[in-house]
Amino acid sequence: MTDTRFSSAIHMLILIAGAEVPMTSEQIARSVGTNASHIRKLAGLLKKQGVIEGRRGARGFRLLMPPEELTLCRVYQAVTETERVHVFDLHQNPSDRCIVGRHIRPALTDVFQDIEQQAERELNALTLADCMQKMRSEMEESHEPSAD
Amino acid sequence: MTDTRFSSAIHMLILIAGAEVPMTSEQIARSVGTNASHIRKLAGLLKKQGVIEGRRGARGFRLLMPPEELTLCRVYQAVTETERVHVFDLHQNPSDRCIVGRHIRPALTDVFQDIEQQAERELNALTLADCMQKMRSEMEESHEPSAD
Repeated sequence: MTDTRFSSAIHMLILIAGAEVPMTSEQIARSVGTNASHIRKLAGLLKKQGVIEGRRGARGFRLLMPPEELTLCRVYQAVTETERVHVFDLHQNPSDRCIVGRHIRPALTDVFQDIEQQAERELNALTLADCMQKMRSEMEESHEPSAD
Repeated sequence: MTDTRFSSAIHMLILIAGAEVPMTSEQIARSVGTNASHIRKLAGLLKKQGVIEGRRGARGFRLLMPPEELTLCRVYQAVTETERVHVFDLHQNPSDRCIVGRHIRPALTDVFQDIEQQAERELNALTLADCMQKMRSEMEESHEPSAD
């Protein structure tokens, strides 16, 4: 996984699911610690996959399903624009002039396949609601009142 | 996983384990598709963890154990300089001024923990010899003679 789109998207979706007053891209960006254009890009990807929609005639977003039904696998696939869960990055430019260089990428893809399929199964078993529950546990442990 | 040190190191170790004539950092770098200083950095990390050593009075490296005994987990830990296998990157700068921002990183670390521990177990069960075997299969499928 080469970037933080996935964890940023989960952060964003927790805000969207939990906020009493709808939040704009700018407000979400401040919480995530990025810029509003990055949040709008993630929002575009999540809209395309039917995870969220813009609120009609108003600012902000809303979830198109209950958090219990939104799997992390679906979030991952939406924002990474890939079908398969990708766990370990492969080096991009092995030499075609070397027998090892020619075969290393398919060989390692194969070696890592079981790990990636297992990760995919686990992401399919986890939902946004599980993340929200973990957030509440963290808040309770640090004696902060829940945002609910 | 934020970079390609892991797959580059596996590539490098396959070359070290399989080469009839010891290869220099420059030769390894050409095959991996990077520069020699990056290879020397990886070699330094692998030496520090007792995976390889320089050849006495000669260029090149040698493995300090048979490929069957070198787990991918050990390679991962050596070159990433971490104990825990890290599967999904977390965004770095969530806001401390937001209740979600304050708790998102520990919450997601917790959510991803099972996936990361599972990946670690699988990397512990895989060895450099498994990667070399996959390479041979790839070569055979493409009708290239094995380098052995």
